[in-house]
Amino acid sequence: MNSHDMPDVQSSHDARDIAIDQVGIKAIRHPMTFLDHGKEQSTVAECQLTVGLPADKKGTHMSRFVALLNEGPLRLSVDSLADWTEAMIERLEAHSGEARFSFPYFIAKDAPVSGQGAMMDYDVTLIGRVEGGRPHIGLKLVIPVTSLCPCSKEISAYGAHNQRSHITVETEIGDPALSLRDLITAVEDQGSCPLWGLLKRPDEKYITEYAFDNPKFVEDMVRDVANALEGYPGLNGFSISVENFESIHNHSAWAVIHRPGQ
Amino acid sequence: MNSHDMPDVQSSHDARDIAIDQVGIKAIRHPMTFLDHGKEQSTVAECQLTVGLPADKKGTHMSRFVALLNEGPLRLSVDSLADWTEAMIERLEAHSGEARFSFPYFIAKDAPVSGQGAMMDYDVTLIGRVEGGRPHIGLKLVIPVTSLCPCSKEISAYGAHNQRSHITVETEIGDPALSLRDLITAVEDQGSCPLWGLLKRPDEKYITEYAFDNPKFVEDMVRDVANALEGYPGLNGFSISVENFESIHNHSAWAVIHRPGQ
Amino acid sequence: MNSHDMPDVQSSHDARDIAIDQVGIKAIRHPMTFLDHGKEQSTVAECQLTVGLPADKKGTHMSRFVALLNEGPLRLSVDSLADWTEAMIERLEAHSGEARFSFPYFIAKDAPVSGQGAMMDYDVTLIGRVEGGRPHIGLKLVIPVTSLCPCSKEISAYGAHNQRSHITVETEIGDPALSLRDLITAVEDQGSCPLWGLLKRPDEKYITEYAFDNPKFVEDMVRDVANALEGYPGLNGFSISVENFESIHNHSAWAVIHRPGQ
Amino acid sequence: MNSHDMPDVQSSHDARDIAIDQVGIKAIRHPMTFLDHGKEQSTVAECQLTVGLPADKKGTHMSRFVALLNEGPLRLSVDSLADWTEAMIERLEAHSGEARFSFPYFIAKDAPVSGQGAMMDYDVTLIGRVEGGRPHIGLKLVIPVTSLCPCSKEISAYGAHNQRSHITVETEIGDPALSLRDLITAVEDQGSCPLWGLLKRPDEKYITEYAFDNPKFVEDMVRDVANALEGYPGLNGFSISVENFESIHNHSAWAVIHRPGQ
Repeated sequence: MNSHDMPDVQSSHDARDIAIDQVGIKAIRHPMTFLDHGKEQSTVAECQLTVGLPADKKGTHMSRFVALLNEGPLRLSVDSLADWTEAMIERLEAHSGEARFSFPYFIAKDAPVSGQGAMMDYDVTLIGRVEGGRPHIGLKLVIPVTSLCPCSKEISAYGAHNQRSHITVETEIGDPALSLRDLITAVEDQGSCPLWGLLKRPDEKYITEYAFDNPKFVEDMVRDVANALEGYPGLNGFSISVENFESIHNHSAWAVIHRPGQ
Repeated sequence: MNSHDMPDVQSSHDARDIAIDQVGIKAIRHPMTFLDHGKEQSTVAECQLTVGLPADKKGTHMSRFVALLNEGPLRLSVDSLADWTEAMIERLEAHSGEARFSFPYFIAKDAPVSGQGAMMDYDVTLIGRVEGGRPHIGLKLVIPVTSLCPCSKEISAYGAHNQRSHITVETEIGDPALSLRDLITAVEDQGSCPLWGLLKRPDEKYITEYAFDNPKFVEDMVRDVANALEGYPGLNGFSISVENFESIHNHSAWAVIHRPGQ
Repeated sequence: MNSHDMPDVQSSHDARDIAIDQVGIKAIRHPMTFLDHGKEQSTVAECQLTVGLPADKKGTHMSRFVALLNEGPLRLSVDSLADWTEAMIERLEAHSGEARFSFPYFIAKDAPVSGQGAMMDYDVTLIGRVEGGRPHIGLKLVIPVTSLCPCSKEISAYGAHNQRSHITVETEIGDPALSLRDLITAVEDQGSCPLWGLLKRPDEKYITEYAFDNPKFVEDMVRDVANALEGYPGLNGFSISVENFESIHNHSAWAVIHRPGQ
Repeated sequence: MNSHDMPDVQSSHDARDIAIDQVGIKAIRHPMTFLDHGKEQSTVAECQLTVGLPADKKGTHMSRFVALLNEGPLRLSVDSLADWTEAMIERLEAHSGEARFSFPYFIAKDAPVSGQGAMMDYDVTLIGRVEGGRPHIGLKLVIPVTSLCPCSKEISAYGAHNQRSHITVETEIGDPALSLRDLITAVEDQGSCPLWGLLKRPDEKYITEYAFDNPKFVEDMVRDVANALEGYPGLNGFSISVENFESIHNHSAWAVIHRPGQ
């Protein structure tokens, strides 16, 4: 019995009359090449691929998502994501859809004094979405920084508690020429200090003092990131959350600002 | 030097003129008693407590959230959550806020044939939110069920692949008398079969055949849950997602339906 | 057809002649009361219950583990765990077995200056094991502390980077009268500073200066914990690991010491 | 002030007289090329790099681990891992050490009937260890398969519950020419059925019936893997664990077999 003789349950008619906003596959990993302004890097993406399903259709074609992922090497950029998403929707015979790719993104950074280079990793999610015939490109970044507590510094005779913090930014990209690396730098500059993979002693002295000179509450960081993104070219709205993994507590301090786009 | 002589950095004026939507504490665990219609159970909650911060205030009072959690035993129900959230907002001298409590919730279930009893655990998040002076009570449930594939059943000479699935429901509760247990039962009935903690052989025979008689795609389950919640008393809108941890793949099938409330 | 008429596949003979070291259930959650020296607390345990299976037996009785968990409220202490494990092994008609209960354990701690009280949570795993007819009681603790970097302090004109760290201790308990709370305190005193749930400004000043006065590398902490446990009454061997979630990097510093028991 | 004028706290003498088994860095991600018998693939590794520290030395050289990772592209194979580990130990001026690289490993698999190709992902950890001057190469694999319950099949009039399972194998490799792909295939053949990324309807029919014809308890799978590895060329001892994410329960069935090497 070959495929054409088999009943195709998914393609049958559905009588419940309920459209489905998103249906597809989730938590599938795939090797991926990411291009940021001509520079490419190899990484591994966790993918979530979905389409809208009209009320009268029983099911979508799950295997086509996987087939699409496996047609030649997966190469994506902010610039090419809209096309990829539209091809996916066409392949699925759908009218709307979303393609999400979450992956570690690496930036080679030089230590601030010694200049020694090392990779720093950031969690990036690229989101291609087509709704009402219009493509939207979204981006989610998780950017680790140092935060140093202004209150602790102010009230203590010496020292100040500090810790790793995560700045999470979700935004819609209006300009496909946007540089991911530049955006990450603009955000991580709003911590008490950025992080590096490799620090020699002169670097450690520098950033210890740098953070001490830039104390910030979680409220300060979320506001400073909002300030930095407010006029940032190529963004359309944003949500920012900052989580401080407090070094003096077993819980986090957390702050959120939403700015809807147009 | 006592507290009154110390500089209070958080209470100083902020010149950036940016309001913060939510600020507070996150990922703090606390013992909690949950009451569902008079029945109480002891559990452990992971809490996220936040308030809105006006543009002219530099910081919130982080330690007051923790103090509030620790004033007497934490006892919560769908019914009492609005009061708790309003008390939190008053204590923080704020105008809006949100209190989230995520915890394992246990239901003692009897196996379908043998009648033997055992606990089943569900992930529940209670959400109290006050905005514009009005309280809202939200609920997030993660309900595990069995799903059995209609296509696999239809095309195969025998057998059908099946797997554990998670049905996630987020909703706003219009009626504080809503029974959590009843709502969970209404949702888990939409899988190919509910789950139990303890099954003897006659139960295993029963549910194996029951699931085989109720094959459902991820699309069927998300629609059937939407149908079940459409007229469900005391709910105001909902979002449903269903994830099948496919037994034949190393990825998930996933479907989502949103129904905004009024 | 009732249970007695059904084929009992698990009880049939196995011809492969391979004994199984551990077989049972894992990742099952259950409400639990933990008793530490007469004081009891309600919590939720994730349980892993296994027995050894002889080479000639095809399968174990999975449902009996669940039945045992559900016979009356689950109440456990270091003292009573050996009995519980032996009862489990008897119920499963086995000769060896292990019962693991992982749960958040809460200690009410008073802030060091203001004296204000709040819960602190620790991850505890109780391990009951019977092998060769002899019971062993094991314990795994994850204890969060502050660490402050001696190098950063020494080379910088001011400040010093610090962060949350996890001290993980695994040990076998020789004396069932051991106090969990005392052991946790003995370990957390080896960080640059312990953590508290609630700190007012005078407390924050105190612990900021305290940590600055007690700088410790990850190497110092793991050695100081080894020192503290070396002569600790009631322990038989230990493994210690310390992980610093570095505030200046996006990775951890980590150190391990093993001391086998007799 | 340059590096040479700064106090080098880590290199100072330690008076506690306690050796440290392992100290280094953990949870650092890095792009990596993995070579399996000449075929190379790009992936991302989470690395854990440690050395032993003698009792009289205060601290290790944390930044050297990171420097080593960043010296040219990271290219590793089972064959070259011993050299990499020895170079690390020399660089750290140590006598023992361990290098762990955990990464998703992809195999292009053709569906069993349609022959359509797609990537399948497996979690692999490569472990290089030098102790007493002798290098050891270890391997940890997490291999997802389908399991179908023999009891459910036997007692039910139709159908049988099945689910995704994880087979975890840890072993020491005696022969550096071992093929990772062949070993994974040998293990995944012991499930009720292997998994594929992409399955068309004729494939789904095939594997549904295949799994139904190969029912296995968690006990059967752990024994069958032990059987398969017992005589497998190039392995020195192994530990196997199998976890069934039961489709009829909200917990797992689990079994473990250890076979120490020489």
